[in-house]
Amino acid sequence: MVEKKRRSFKYFLGHRSPTEILICGFALLILCGTCLLMLPISSRSGEGTAFINALFTATSSVCVTGLVVVDTGTYWSVFGQTVMCVLVEIGGLGFMSFATMFFVLAGKRITIKDRILIQSSVNMDSLSGIVKFVKYIFFSSIIIQTVGALLLALVFVPDFGLATGIGYSVFHSVTSFCNAGFDLMGNFKSFTGYADNYLLNIVICSLIVLGGLGFAVTSDLIYVRKFKKMSMHSKVVLISTGFLLVFGFIFFIIFEFNNPKTMGNLSLHGKFLASFFQSVTPRTAGSNTIDIAGLTEPSIFLTILLMFIGASPGSTGGGVKTTTVAVLLMTVGSVLKGKKDVVVFKRTILGPVIRRSLSVLVIAVGLVFFMIFVLLCTEPGAPFDAVVFEVMSAFGTVGLTMGLTPNLSGAGKIAISLTMFIGRLGPLTIAYAISRSEKHSRENVGNIKLPEGNIMIG
Amino acid sequence: MVEKKRRSFKYFLGHRSPTEILICGFALLILCGTCLLMLPISSRSGEGTAFINALFTATSSVCVTGLVVVDTGTYWSVFGQTVMCVLVEIGGLGFMSFATMFFVLAGKRITIKDRILIQSSVNMDSLSGIVKFVKYIFFSSIIIQTVGALLLALVFVPDFGLATGIGYSVFHSVTSFCNAGFDLMGNFKSFTGYADNYLLNIVICSLIVLGGLGFAVTSDLIYVRKFKKMSMHSKVVLISTGFLLVFGFIFFIIFEFNNPKTMGNLSLHGKFLASFFQSVTPRTAGSNTIDIAGLTEPSIFLTILLMFIGASPGSTGGGVKTTTVAVLLMTVGSVLKGKKDVVVFKRTILGPVIRRSLSVLVIAVGLVFFMIFVLLCTEPGAPFDAVVFEVMSAFGTVGLTMGLTPNLSGAGKIAISLTMFIGRLGPLTIAYAISRSEKHSRENVGNIKLPEGNIMIG
Ligand SMILES: [K+]
Ligand SMILES: [K+]
Repeated sequence: MVEKKRRSFKYFLGHRSPTEILICGFALLILCGTCLLMLPISSRSGEGTAFINALFTATSSVCVTGLVVVDTGTYWSVFGQTVMCVLVEIGGLGFMSFATMFFVLAGKRITIKDRILIQSSVNMDSLSGIVKFVKYIFFSSIIIQTVGALLLALVFVPDFGLATGIGYSVFHSVTSFCNAGFDLMGNFKSFTGYADNYLLNIVICSLIVLGGLGFAVTSDLIYVRKFKKMSMHSKVVLISTGFLLVFGFIFFIIFEFNNPKTMGNLSLHGKFLASFFQSVTPRTAGSNTIDIAGLTEPSIFLTILLMFIGASPGSTGGGVKTTTVAVLLMTVGSVLKGKKDVVVFKRTILGPVIRRSLSVLVIAVGLVFFMIFVLLCTEPGAPFDAVVFEVMSAFGTVGLTMGLTPNLSGAGKIAISLTMFIGRLGPLTIAYAISRSEKHSRENVGNIKLPEGNIMIG
Repeated sequence: MVEKKRRSFKYFLGHRSPTEILICGFALLILCGTCLLMLPISSRSGEGTAFINALFTATSSVCVTGLVVVDTGTYWSVFGQTVMCVLVEIGGLGFMSFATMFFVLAGKRITIKDRILIQSSVNMDSLSGIVKFVKYIFFSSIIIQTVGALLLALVFVPDFGLATGIGYSVFHSVTSFCNAGFDLMGNFKSFTGYADNYLLNIVICSLIVLGGLGFAVTSDLIYVRKFKKMSMHSKVVLISTGFLLVFGFIFFIIFEFNNPKTMGNLSLHGKFLASFFQSVTPRTAGSNTIDIAGLTEPSIFLTILLMFIGASPGSTGGGVKTTTVAVLLMTVGSVLKGKKDVVVFKRTILGPVIRRSLSVLVIAVGLVFFMIFVLLCTEPGAPFDAVVFEVMSAFGTVGLTMGLTPNLSGAGKIAISLTMFIGRLGPLTIAYAISRSEKHSRENVGNIKLPEGNIMIG
């Protein structure tokens, strides 16, 4: 009986596409997390948590978003917080990388099928060196997060004592590197109390940026070093990330400098730190050192745009992805210049990549519009900007909020959970799974084996 | 001296692209209108009008938008209203069609250069039959608008007396057919007093839809008749227009049925009429029979989306255009199905058309976002939804407003004027003119001479 079940399970796996397995894996992980968070032991009050709130928190953790319906620091017990931390780590590094590590450590052979599955999970561009790459993901993550935790301990141990201080350091190092944006500061206040603390700002920002670049890029930074020799993917990611950081920084300095609700009362260096932090965090990090609801309208609008663009593919973040936007802009540029081909870094970007980018954009816009519409129906009193902000934050798995999340209705919580899930897996991944034609799509349209203009999209 | 000037003017024309001449023509027309509207004779009070308000009104008229900073019915004199009506007619039918008619009537030969210019203005897909087509535009417009005015007189003459009634009938017939959305009812109230008047609703809606389909499509409707034999352009326009009308109608019935601020207090047939009118008007018409600011948030959001999509190319309306959206959706569909080519009605849509559609979308989104951003800066107290609504309305040359227009600051008025101008001429037209490479673009990318999948974009 058990044997038969195992066989039918194997049969099930054998007839699923990598994408379907990936989606099911994430869904299962969320379900496990929900069950654990519903236990009385998970909450500080010792009472069980409602299904919908546990589901929301588990989804937010696995999808490394950071939106919360209950305050992380005061509602959940240490056990509950540990569950969240583990979900973030698994969700952030990709549960498939974890599975691979498990296989490797157990000395098992990795089949081609496994490799394809892993590849699909970490969004790599070739099958060779997958195992090596997953090892790299695992060890580099451990090193970076340990260093981050040690540095954060210099801030948190003096403030909260040894035990709590170390716990806080580990939690915030993990959530920052995985760009999850959860915090234990209590009362939804994130790092607003540390707006002008140099060490904390620098460490948290570094963790966020390193995690947000994606492992393929950090690996290029470490092993290839020279910009010219890097993969085209890394070049586009580095340039677009750098541009968005500098642009956001200048923007926030200008528009928030004298805003008393945000950084108006900070010292000059505090203002610079806060602006930089504010430019880093919409790139899917989701922590904040200034009050989001207090931002000026232009700043809120820019944050919405940055959240929609999101992170780079193959990273811990969501959104339509920097490379998608880059390909679209380059295409428009070539149309305006009257050129037949889209050329970047001396390589042609092929029609299939352009069509794939276009699809990501259209599906993303469609999804986001639909969810905004749903939320306008389920949350009748909510301001329009707060609703748009919330949906963009969930889609980009960013986790910033203008304060709407804790007041969401049940239907609203489900809509936002779904948005986080789709945002994390990528709109195109979900759409492929629904249309059940991934095989053809990969052959004809997939961006993976194209010799020219190889950029990861969506 | 005069001769020399004429020669240099000819030289100037000879070295401009059709697009540049078109843009200059519209700009000149707006400038003339502004001067006329600034005259004391144009206002009811007999005082001169401020440049910025005259500019805004002239732009709104020429670009057939209908947004107003001063109330059309109570502020402007009959002279001023006549100026606006003429600007709407010239702007709506395209000043180039007018110029052609002038040439034809004067018995002059029409050169190839003239034809290209006209073609670019009415967005036709072949050089042959241009003159015939422009004649068709002119005479069909006169017939439709005359019939419309006669029918409207049955409503307005009893209500306002003979002279005023006839004036009102002509004005509203012209502005409705040209999808300009101006009204003389006073106090910015549009047709809210006629929400349950069958005749007015049917006549105005018919004028709006006929004008909004575009002359190429109405010509197909009259001369080709059979759907299967129509051009692909007409097919796509008719299907998308029909779908949007039915969808909008059902949507507004559901979401406004019991809303006391809009149609809650109307009779059942009044509710149906109002819902239908409300579904027709965001397709760039801009009149309204119910209070826009009173709409529920989901209805406002849908209206914003409909306004962004806008009308069909070659018509009197703006926006990204129905065909652009259709091509993009078909492309996404083919990517999801894993197909190599985008096929519709047994014809392949080529890469250049897809890239052109993509460019229209990206440029439009970029422009709209930029203008929203500008307005958030220039109108600090304005609600986010009202600002987004206003920009979308201007870009789609729709003319609906949540009440922001009359309270705009000077800078805001200029920003909205510019948005109307770009929305009317098409984002891609402006972008081509700026990048000064239209010749190459037309050759390589233009959608005009492609044998396969010939759809007008942008
Ligand atoms: K996040
Ligand atoms: K209009």
